[in-house]
Amino acid sequence: MHSPLLEQLIQSLRCLPGVGPKSAQRMAIYLLERNRSGAARLSDTLALALDNIGRCEQCRALTEEVRCRICSNPARNKSILCVVGSPADLYAIEQAGSYQGLYFVLSGHLSPIDGIGPDDIGINELMTLLQQNPVEEVILANNPNVEGDATAYYIAGLLKDQNLVISRIAHGVPVGGELEYVDGGTLSHAFNGRQLLR
Amino acid sequence: MHSPLLEQLIQSLRCLPGVGPKSAQRMAIYLLERNRSGAARLSDTLALALDNIGRCEQCRALTEEVRCRICSNPARNKSILCVVGSPADLYAIEQAGSYQGLYFVLSGHLSPIDGIGPDDIGINELMTLLQQNPVEEVILANNPNVEGDATAYYIAGLLKDQNLVISRIAHGVPVGGELEYVDGGTLSHAFNGRQLLR
Ligand SMILES: [Zn+2]
Ligand SMILES: [Zn+2]
Repeated sequence: MHSPLLEQLIQSLRCLPGVGPKSAQRMAIYLLERNRSGAARLSDTLALALDNIGRCEQCRALTEEVRCRICSNPARNKSILCVVGSPADLYAIEQAGSYQGLYFVLSGHLSPIDGIGPDDIGINELMTLLQQNPVEEVILANNPNVEGDATAYYIAGLLKDQNLVISRIAHGVPVGGELEYVDGGTLSHAFNGRQLLR
Repeated sequence: MHSPLLEQLIQSLRCLPGVGPKSAQRMAIYLLERNRSGAARLSDTLALALDNIGRCEQCRALTEEVRCRICSNPARNKSILCVVGSPADLYAIEQAGSYQGLYFVLSGHLSPIDGIGPDDIGINELMTLLQQNPVEEVILANNPNVEGDATAYYIAGLLKDQNLVISRIAHGVPVGGELEYVDGGTLSHAFNGRQLLR
């Protein structure tokens, strides 16, 4: 039905997350009929990014530089380190705008059932960073789910004999959310972590 | 927040239809962290497709060949021509599997308000095809909306002095649909186009 090369393009577009056969076909037709210059730019930028973007040698964030702009920014507070499970989490925290310390980006979370252990997610590199930097507090911002909790507790265990403040981001009701739509687990956490007003 | 090259990749991904800033970031991180081989294949295939895929010289379908596989298939019925508004519509009809004639793919539909006239959508090439081929019936399968109707009536007008059967695809309730969810315009068409059962 599609010409062989068009079929190949549609299949290649399916490597994108969330793109099924219908959207891939729609994207291919759109690029070929309406936006060839955008498609050429995408092809070039993708090749350039693959050749140049790796991980920051210190925090493992995605960057084309040896050391990322956060790690090499003298204004960042090098005594606080925030551990996250993916680059997207780092961007979400940066966008919130109130955190001024350093980061460490794990490659996901521990998941023994999938054979994902400490070596696979970068725990060794995290330990190296902590040895080489004057970190005083580690904030574990791993995802608030079973794997994220397990990973946070595992890291806390490894660090328990070091002279570090270790914290976990608070669970609770989202700001601006409605209680009615908050799940029970989150509500329990919100009650257990309640703060005195006076 | 993102490194300059990562930001450039995210912007490039936004040329894809339906991809906003959040999905573009998600796609960029996924490709760089999880699927570099898929990303490399996408970059290469996109470049190859842009260099090679053009329009069939006869029906204007997307193809890397001079004449597409439908136009060059001796088994297709060359006396019937179906006019559609986009390659996606051609694929939808081919997938339905019952049509065996030729196609002509217009580049969208007439839209005087947007300055889109007959020359812009390929009406001249359609007339050339009809002069050069033994077509006996033209099926106007333009979209069932205002622009599609206007385009179909415009083409029917151009062809009125030629010895051709000209038809428009039927409007009506979708097979398997529930009347309750069918819009009023479609329901009116379904009543006006009702068929005798005996
Ligand atoms: Zn860094
Ligand atoms: Zn053709």
